[in-house]
Amino acid sequence: MSSHSSPLDAAFNAEAFRETGHRLMDQLADYLRASLARSDTPVLPAIGPEAMLREWPGDFSEHPGTDFQTIIGRVLRLSHNLQHPRYIGHQCCTALPLAALNDLVGTFLNNASAVYEMGPVNIAMEKRLVQWMATLAGYGPEADGIFTNGGTLGNLTALLSARQVKADYNIWTEGVDSGRPLAVLVSEQCHYSVKRAVSVMGLGERAVYPVAVDREFHMDREDLARQYKKATGEDRRVFAVVANGCSTATGSFDDLEAVADFTREHDLWLHVDAAHGGSALLSGKYRSLLKGLNRADSLIWDAHKMMMIPALATAVLFREGRHSYESFSQKASYLFEKESREEWYNYAHRTMECTKTMMGIKLYVPLAVYGTGIFREFIDRTYDLTRAFADLIEASPDFELAVRPQSNIICFRYLPDGIADPDDLQRRIRRRVLERERFYIVQTDLKKRFYLRCTVINPGTTIGDIEELLQHIRETAAEI
Amino acid sequence: MSSHSSPLDAAFNAEAFRETGHRLMDQLADYLRASLARSDTPVLPAIGPEAMLREWPGDFSEHPGTDFQTIIGRVLRLSHNLQHPRYIGHQCCTALPLAALNDLVGTFLNNASAVYEMGPVNIAMEKRLVQWMATLAGYGPEADGIFTNGGTLGNLTALLSARQVKADYNIWTEGVDSGRPLAVLVSEQCHYSVKRAVSVMGLGERAVYPVAVDREFHMDREDLARQYKKATGEDRRVFAVVANGCSTATGSFDDLEAVADFTREHDLWLHVDAAHGGSALLSGKYRSLLKGLNRADSLIWDAHKMMMIPALATAVLFREGRHSYESFSQKASYLFEKESREEWYNYAHRTMECTKTMMGIKLYVPLAVYGTGIFREFIDRTYDLTRAFADLIEASPDFELAVRPQSNIICFRYLPDGIADPDDLQRRIRRRVLERERFYIVQTDLKKRFYLRCTVINPGTTIGDIEELLQHIRETAAEI
Repeated sequence: MSSHSSPLDAAFNAEAFRETGHRLMDQLADYLRASLARSDTPVLPAIGPEAMLREWPGDFSEHPGTDFQTIIGRVLRLSHNLQHPRYIGHQCCTALPLAALNDLVGTFLNNASAVYEMGPVNIAMEKRLVQWMATLAGYGPEADGIFTNGGTLGNLTALLSARQVKADYNIWTEGVDSGRPLAVLVSEQCHYSVKRAVSVMGLGERAVYPVAVDREFHMDREDLARQYKKATGEDRRVFAVVANGCSTATGSFDDLEAVADFTREHDLWLHVDAAHGGSALLSGKYRSLLKGLNRADSLIWDAHKMMMIPALATAVLFREGRHSYESFSQKASYLFEKESREEWYNYAHRTMECTKTMMGIKLYVPLAVYGTGIFREFIDRTYDLTRAFADLIEASPDFELAVRPQSNIICFRYLPDGIADPDDLQRRIRRRVLERERFYIVQTDLKKRFYLRCTVINPGTTIGDIEELLQHIRETAAEI
Repeated sequence: MSSHSSPLDAAFNAEAFRETGHRLMDQLADYLRASLARSDTPVLPAIGPEAMLREWPGDFSEHPGTDFQTIIGRVLRLSHNLQHPRYIGHQCCTALPLAALNDLVGTFLNNASAVYEMGPVNIAMEKRLVQWMATLAGYGPEADGIFTNGGTLGNLTALLSARQVKADYNIWTEGVDSGRPLAVLVSEQCHYSVKRAVSVMGLGERAVYPVAVDREFHMDREDLARQYKKATGEDRRVFAVVANGCSTATGSFDDLEAVADFTREHDLWLHVDAAHGGSALLSGKYRSLLKGLNRADSLIWDAHKMMMIPALATAVLFREGRHSYESFSQKASYLFEKESREEWYNYAHRTMECTKTMMGIKLYVPLAVYGTGIFREFIDRTYDLTRAFADLIEASPDFELAVRPQSNIICFRYLPDGIADPDDLQRRIRRRVLERERFYIVQTDLKKRFYLRCTVINPGTTIGDIEELLQHIRETAAEI
């Protein structure tokens, strides 16, 4: 070290790091213990954004300020508690504790995995994971893919490949304005990121033809044909169909065999957004929900949803691996020495990111340590419990189910007798549930009605928690 | 817990987590100590991608396999060691040890910060950081912005806003093919992600007009005017100029005042890629390198480069904050309840990502704990040392400097007497340096010549290390 007295050198002192780290471990283990015991920790503290801003001043001074342990204590106290079994809200998972520790290795090493030289272990692990996931999806040995920062980027990466492969000229160099206007057929229940990707890609929201869904929120086969006809009638070249495996709002799995028949018939790219549902492939009991997935040209699958891996780790898989090289196509002498396809191990050829976090280690290590068993158990337990949740709703005359759940997402309404405005009641119930800090649930619009929405995503959640949630909703509504 | 005997429940045991965490802390602290002591740990193990693949089997079984401590030991041994003071390669930083611990809090909590409800603490911290960074950039109170996953996404997000703001119709809904072809003027030294963003956006690589640089690798003012004329002559509507603060290959800072004069004259959007150089704003000694940055319409600044924060945390800042809402523009009922501008705290309106990691906590906590002092010290130390590095090169007749370094990036060649093919020699030197595992350096092409390239980015690197590197290169070349 050049100078032992400098604050910068002190920040790199290994013994200070060790000591701070041990204290942090105790802090986090205590937090986990309290959360799982359903102690008085709020699931989500009822503080609005402006009040929260006042908790965190923004005038950083030249000199040291708050002690680390103190500030982390405040962070834990004011954060959203995903470890709590009564977090039954968004599709954000409680981190598998070992996966969180494992992520510390990733951030500590900070091997940014754009090219092999920058993160050799991670690159190898990503390759193994892509092969393993592709096999689970029913793809053959020619499949390939990459990991990227989340489902939105994943959908964009896949659609960029579709745009390039299905065009009759080089769109990457010539631009979308050098050919016939394009169109994409998209389940109206697709995640907003699909529509976003289409606009980012310069096609305009007009290029999205939403396909209606049936009563179970599956893409309607007849409307698919209708929208195809409509788009071609408007002189657009349809190049892709995006299906759900499963959808965000209701967790519904499209009939992938039927959609694949359609895309084969019309020579279209089939992309399946399996961000949430892909993990069902790990369950013998539920993998048939994804029947036909092996026929998709591309799919995305988030390890940070139903595999309990901390965000973000999205796999983008291509049935024909060479298409993984079509999303982007460039040179950069300070990074690459060869042509892209000679360098499977330099992922920046194929990912939006240049600097990328160690996504391989995120998923590889927990899989290697635990085996696949706990992941299967997690799928089965949460999917099973959501079905039991639906049974409870159906057995309760004051509640109404939107649709029988297919995955671990469920939408329902509380409808006691004599309610004038059911939508308004659900909205108010949800706000009040949040204020009470005991449960976390979310909401959605379905066919112009407002529903309460839950994702059963914490392995500690039990049917007892669900029973108490329904009772909690009843009490909350009575207060309103 | 529903069943104490289940492997899934066992994985959530708080005491097992505590114990594993303490062991991991010792493992990482020992690694840090050894790295800083320049012990025998290789900077980068000389293993090729295929051999590395064989180290990590991909057949995950149903049952538990490797023990966590064992597998992490192998990960540490086979990874790229950024903690080592002789890592002088890419612009990837050694993680500030406290920042790595702090990231564990972020991944443990896993508060995905798409909307306020999902990550309230993080959202508030991001807001404070954006204000603080915008003020450092010289922006006024109307500035705003967001954090995103890396510079590539940051450049894309800024250019999407530029595309939307500067168009004379709604490109988001209508597509780029509904108006006159667009064009962007880009320093030929821009990071490849800028060109990539333009193609992603559907404009085609043809829409990029590269602007030549002068001998110091600054964008040439006259060629800027020439390219503008060329693009408009080819019936393209130029909407933006992208300048460097600083560039990737040589770390050169464009003359932002001159470029801003040009963009004002022609009513163009000025975007500055300050991914690497933005942190120089923290240094009284070096901040003048960014003079004129306050006139940029948008800029990006990576905290994971010169602020020692583990990847990824890129700030995208807009001089006029309302433009931050123009990059994307959508609705999603399961996420948002109101119009986007009423909801500054729901960042998903403005970021590519829906689920996003806790980027606010990543940077806020280290700043709050240490103050700004150590960050200033880091910039001054690395920039100063790079200048001393250049002095050494200039004093050595057998070495040649590409250009005097402006930041902490330096490019040079080893040119002993009687060399037939200097490019080939540099290439072979670099490969051999990597094989010897003692130093990590990279390479780049500059004006069709091959150079060795270093980024001084570890606070432990000293002038002694640089002297030994030059000697190491001489010895390596002698072996060839």
